[in-house]
Amino acid sequence: MITSEFKLIESIRKKVNLLQNGSENIFGIGDDCAVYRISDDRYGLFSTDISVENVHFNLDYTSLSDAGYRSMAANVSDIYAMGGKPVLALVSIGIPPQYTEQMIDELYDGILTCALKHGTFIAGGDTSKSDKLVVNISIYGETCRPVYRKGAEAGDRIYVTGNTGLSKLGLEILNKNACRDNFPKSVEKHLRPDPRIDLISPIVNEYHPTAMIDISDGLLIDLGHICEMSHCGFEIYIDNVPADDELEGFCAEKKIAASDYTLYSGEEYELIFTAKKDIKDNEHIRYIGNVTASGYILIKGDSQITIEPAGYDHFR
Amino acid sequence: MITSEFKLIESIRKKVNLLQNGSENIFGIGDDCAVYRISDDRYGLFSTDISVENVHFNLDYTSLSDAGYRSMAANVSDIYAMGGKPVLALVSIGIPPQYTEQMIDELYDGILTCALKHGTFIAGGDTSKSDKLVVNISIYGETCRPVYRKGAEAGDRIYVTGNTGLSKLGLEILNKNACRDNFPKSVEKHLRPDPRIDLISPIVNEYHPTAMIDISDGLLIDLGHICEMSHCGFEIYIDNVPADDELEGFCAEKKIAASDYTLYSGEEYELIFTAKKDIKDNEHIRYIGNVTASGYILIKGDSQITIEPAGYDHFR
Repeated sequence: MITSEFKLIESIRKKVNLLQNGSENIFGIGDDCAVYRISDDRYGLFSTDISVENVHFNLDYTSLSDAGYRSMAANVSDIYAMGGKPVLALVSIGIPPQYTEQMIDELYDGILTCALKHGTFIAGGDTSKSDKLVVNISIYGETCRPVYRKGAEAGDRIYVTGNTGLSKLGLEILNKNACRDNFPKSVEKHLRPDPRIDLISPIVNEYHPTAMIDISDGLLIDLGHICEMSHCGFEIYIDNVPADDELEGFCAEKKIAASDYTLYSGEEYELIFTAKKDIKDNEHIRYIGNVTASGYILIKGDSQITIEPAGYDHFR
Repeated sequence: MITSEFKLIESIRKKVNLLQNGSENIFGIGDDCAVYRISDDRYGLFSTDISVENVHFNLDYTSLSDAGYRSMAANVSDIYAMGGKPVLALVSIGIPPQYTEQMIDELYDGILTCALKHGTFIAGGDTSKSDKLVVNISIYGETCRPVYRKGAEAGDRIYVTGNTGLSKLGLEILNKNACRDNFPKSVEKHLRPDPRIDLISPIVNEYHPTAMIDISDGLLIDLGHICEMSHCGFEIYIDNVPADDELEGFCAEKKIAASDYTLYSGEEYELIFTAKKDIKDNEHIRYIGNVTASGYILIKGDSQITIEPAGYDHFR
């Protein structure tokens, strides 16, 4: 039995690296995308994501259109996480026997709506029969300067885009079959996440990030990925981590800390990046802490605790 | 219920084309690969293939290593079919709950063996839980001159590489649980097909193909795809279509025509191409007929019949 997706991927990676001699033009193994040098100032970015019914989405409360939208959003976000813009995507679908063409049409509606919004051309794909619905999207993007996970250095400042936590709350609302209308932003964020197309140019061109990742597993876990690859640590000011009013309201009523959501919520598709530059807090970008030499530290007021990042693992 | 994969793909294609305005740099929709113009004499080729347990492979007689090998071979073959060379691939795996790391290791052995043989770098991937084993491989290759399905013209000559038919016979042997040792080449061709890495350079550089495709559905059906895209027909001299001795021996004993296999066997990963050039028959390339203005005709001795191509459809 496979108990951890992270351990499995690590063991696959070791095997692949052992047998392949590396390539002088391909980088980024273990990053959000594989990076391929086309020429000195032009890089291709490649990523793939498999989404399986009942693992990544539950069709009891996720429409086929939403399932398609989310699958494409996860891919687009991987390209942004490397500082790139998407160019094209290929879509493979495993289709259960009872499905109709109308249902596949709905799924494609979601895929295409997201693709069009993010300037991604659906250039091909494949279909097969399958017991459960499977959507695998592979995406290709480009950048003149890839941003890896590995470039953070002690002293760099840590920033996050938008706010985090809503996706986890949205999932809980949907799972509990609670009234969606009371949590419109949370449910929307979970079902139709919108990767930050609006922020890629300013981040890459004005803020010169030293490392970047998108939040798919949760803020702490994904920041942990940056630190692992950069051989460094972090300190995060919990109260700086932005939360939406809808989440604040829910947490106040339940008398729980918003950070239970903001730090751990996955599938947010917001960006975390590190930079030397001192960026003034604004509507879209917030300073939340610093890169340190080692250790993972959370700071709240005068107290601080050391943690081990741990997050969502599809095999658990 | 979806009754035809071809019709489904056609309806998806229509929808996608309707909503997307086309792209001045992306071509090849409906071909073996999507084609992306990197610069005037450099093109990226993209393809993806989903393989699902019990649809594309049966683990009763296919080892995990063979299943991995075949999945990669199908992808590599798509790149060759466009006149390109593979560069890198991404591998997504849906893993059943009872699987061990050792089993995934075996699967990757097959994937990597095929990838290394064909100069393809495994640059990334994704994993998920799944009820049945799912392997989705996306591949990227390059060429300076893509060969499409659409360029054939009446009067062009039709060529096929190697020989065809063994894969279908191999599948029958395996399905019937007959003695593999009597049909070693057929079983090998089915389980470990080898796309024609050896012939790509001569075909593209010396023979200047007007159209090309790889045989994944069957010689007649795939040639039909060329004719559909090129708005033309074909005439095939059945006796010219090459068959291996192992297939000839089997057919002679059973008193059946070898063409029952050579014309319909899928997953051969040999190439069919059309060209103006008169190429002398050799060990690897055989002249089998001509492109005509319209109609699909099979010629045997003095008699000829008109046919409708029909081939393997995973949804039937």
